[in-house]
Amino acid sequence: IEKQDSATLKIEMEGLYPADVTGILYEMESQEARYLINQLDTKIGAEILADLDPPERREFLKNFTSEEISRYVNLFDSDDAVDLLNEQPIRVREEVIALLEDREQARFILDLLHYDEDVAGGLMQKELVKANVNWNMNQCIEELRKQAEDVEKVYAVYVVDDHERLLGLLSLKKIVLAHKNTKVESIYDQDFIFVETYRPAEEVAELMQRYDLDAVPVVNVQGKLLGRITIDDIVDVITEQASSDTLAMAGITGDVEEDDTVWRQTQARLPWLLVGMMGGILAAKFIGFFEGDLKIVPAMAAFIPIIGSTGGNVGIQTSSIILQSLADKSGLDTGVWQRLIRMFAVALINGLIISLIVFGFNLLIGNELQLALVVSSALLSVVFLASFMGTVTPLALDKLGINPAVASGPFITTANDLIGYGVYFGLAHLLLDL
Amino acid sequence: IEKQDSATLKIEMEGLYPADVTGILYEMESQEARYLINQLDTKIGAEILADLDPPERREFLKNFTSEEISRYVNLFDSDDAVDLLNEQPIRVREEVIALLEDREQARFILDLLHYDEDVAGGLMQKELVKANVNWNMNQCIEELRKQAEDVEKVYAVYVVDDHERLLGLLSLKKIVLAHKNTKVESIYDQDFIFVETYRPAEEVAELMQRYDLDAVPVVNVQGKLLGRITIDDIVDVITEQASSDTLAMAGITGDVEEDDTVWRQTQARLPWLLVGMMGGILAAKFIGFFEGDLKIVPAMAAFIPIIGSTGGNVGIQTSSIILQSLADKSGLDTGVWQRLIRMFAVALINGLIISLIVFGFNLLIGNELQLALVVSSALLSVVFLASFMGTVTPLALDKLGINPAVASGPFITTANDLIGYGVYFGLAHLLLDL
Repeated sequence: IEKQDSATLKIEMEGLYPADVTGILYEMESQEARYLINQLDTKIGAEILADLDPPERREFLKNFTSEEISRYVNLFDSDDAVDLLNEQPIRVREEVIALLEDREQARFILDLLHYDEDVAGGLMQKELVKANVNWNMNQCIEELRKQAEDVEKVYAVYVVDDHERLLGLLSLKKIVLAHKNTKVESIYDQDFIFVETYRPAEEVAELMQRYDLDAVPVVNVQGKLLGRITIDDIVDVITEQASSDTLAMAGITGDVEEDDTVWRQTQARLPWLLVGMMGGILAAKFIGFFEGDLKIVPAMAAFIPIIGSTGGNVGIQTSSIILQSLADKSGLDTGVWQRLIRMFAVALINGLIISLIVFGFNLLIGNELQLALVVSSALLSVVFLASFMGTVTPLALDKLGINPAVASGPFITTANDLIGYGVYFGLAHLLLDL
Repeated sequence: IEKQDSATLKIEMEGLYPADVTGILYEMESQEARYLINQLDTKIGAEILADLDPPERREFLKNFTSEEISRYVNLFDSDDAVDLLNEQPIRVREEVIALLEDREQARFILDLLHYDEDVAGGLMQKELVKANVNWNMNQCIEELRKQAEDVEKVYAVYVVDDHERLLGLLSLKKIVLAHKNTKVESIYDQDFIFVETYRPAEEVAELMQRYDLDAVPVVNVQGKLLGRITIDDIVDVITEQASSDTLAMAGITGDVEEDDTVWRQTQARLPWLLVGMMGGILAAKFIGFFEGDLKIVPAMAAFIPIIGSTGGNVGIQTSSIILQSLADKSGLDTGVWQRLIRMFAVALINGLIISLIVFGFNLLIGNELQLALVVSSALLSVVFLASFMGTVTPLALDKLGINPAVASGPFITTANDLIGYGVYFGLAHLLLDL
């Protein structure tokens, strides 16, 4: 590649799928990548560009002229084209649209640029095959032939009335099996699921999963057919959602990846580390009040870690289970009370086991009975309190419309730590007669 | 429903999709559920049963006779049938298979029962439409007509030779657009992706996501076409994977849900809580060694929590980012060294900021300069060590073939806590001249 030996390169690349070339591109400098992409067939180049991760794509495309970009975008599905253009500076975006050879494509893109990325309108593509309800199969097939090149995966033909309002759909299977003269009217499926442009992406994902749909049509408030969302875009929504929830629980804001810049990673991580630090400082101030007690019974300090970690672990376990059942909307809502009772039952068993073991350990290493009692009753209380917090916090955040995953992890852990130390030192002060 | 007023019930249910009825069923006792399902059209009942979550389904089906079950399973896709049967006791399983009216279905099921759930063979369904390479379109359409009822979503017709070996595929779009007398041979797509029966489910999921496939054919080692895996099954694999990874990171083993029994939840949660407890006991023993120091400088105890929580938070953040990039295989592997250098750069910035703030706080509240120095240098070291552990542990587990998510959360946190206390007290002992 360094010698830009294009003949060898072409031969080497011919056996590969576009998705495989993508993997190789990530290893390259943007100049090399540009050279490589331009060597390939425009159609394959377009597929590769559509497939790249946004940050890398933005990097690579800095070296492309607007003419080059428009040549590829011309072959994109409209939804992918909009994604790519949204990453570009506004000047490049406008130049590319102006340069597009396919004027219909340009119109599609201008339509789609209105929508936010995270609603149905922002996920949909304009490419689809539609048929008027009054047509017969022959006309349908004719239309399909016309659209065949633009619409990569057909799934179904959408049936509309004269005002472009969506009436139903017709699967390809039915078209294959029907007679040429059959009217669309008499065989199309009127029982179908659609979404409006303003529906949030996650709702669309849930709907398509629930009803096992390959594609869902998108309509405006008047019921006019505007586009469709295909399952492959939804798979991306699902994986992104899952990974950003996991990151949120780990105390990382935004969609950060390992190969992002150091600065970007720091930005994403520092805020929650500071939350933890504030918690730590508060804990320090708080334990400071009991310095006198610690001077008398220094062994108390030894159990600070187990109080903190048990509270933290129980809290994270509990909130993860609640988060999971919030995400899985197939079950119906159970009441808060029912949830708390169940959580408390689990907490009782876990708490008893842990505090009994620690109690035994304390007696074994020869600590005073009183101290052992303080530590174990503090542990039991902490398990209960952490279960309570872990149940209530995500439910409350969810009710308030905040993504419960975002604030659950570090927030709950910090709160549990503080509550735990409070209980521990409070009990100690009372029971040890300090 | 309690009055078993079947007429009203039918009317109420008629407007609903099967997936909606499923939601209602979760609220019912199994006797009621059986009554309701048996009231519905067998086809709709079958769809509902195929859609239920395994634990609820097992519960409900306890009240069904084998005859009833077989009536529904008769209408299942073969992959769903196998899933249902695998949940039943072996006697019920055999009875149901023996009672199946559709003998082809019974044969399909017996074939599929051989495979593990988590490989391609266990995900595939036998229902598909195949065409011999020597046929023409008319024969293809005839075959499609025959299979139309059994195969819910066709996507593509698979092209095989006389020995049932998979040669390629033919999209429905091509069939619609082709002439009736065109030979399959001349238009089918020879460039296609397939999987072998033994491929792990996650690999299939990754493949289908990467190449945006709706369905992928499954072959045996001789290349003989055995079945296909459709995208809706893969969407389930992806969501299950994501949720079980999240649970694993939170220290929960196995696929537990909020409405599982208290005992089941305890089993899933207690092991990791015990790991945390062992860590806490070790920490207690360890801090015990420094009891003398604490007697002299009790203020030291106040900073135990911030050391522990900072180490824990940094460790979880770091390992989550590494886990994410291990899961996202589209990028190519970066070396361990490169990863560590990047992690250390982030750790340096975060660690310096946090330790400087804490240093300021310590001077502000009038703690001794020496203690402030000890705390802040311990914090900085802990941030580095936790970053190192958070990077290396998941990479090592992944190399060893253990799911890195399983052991990352609680394991790393516990290890980081211990290392942190070690550094803190070690530094204190040295610098405070105790």
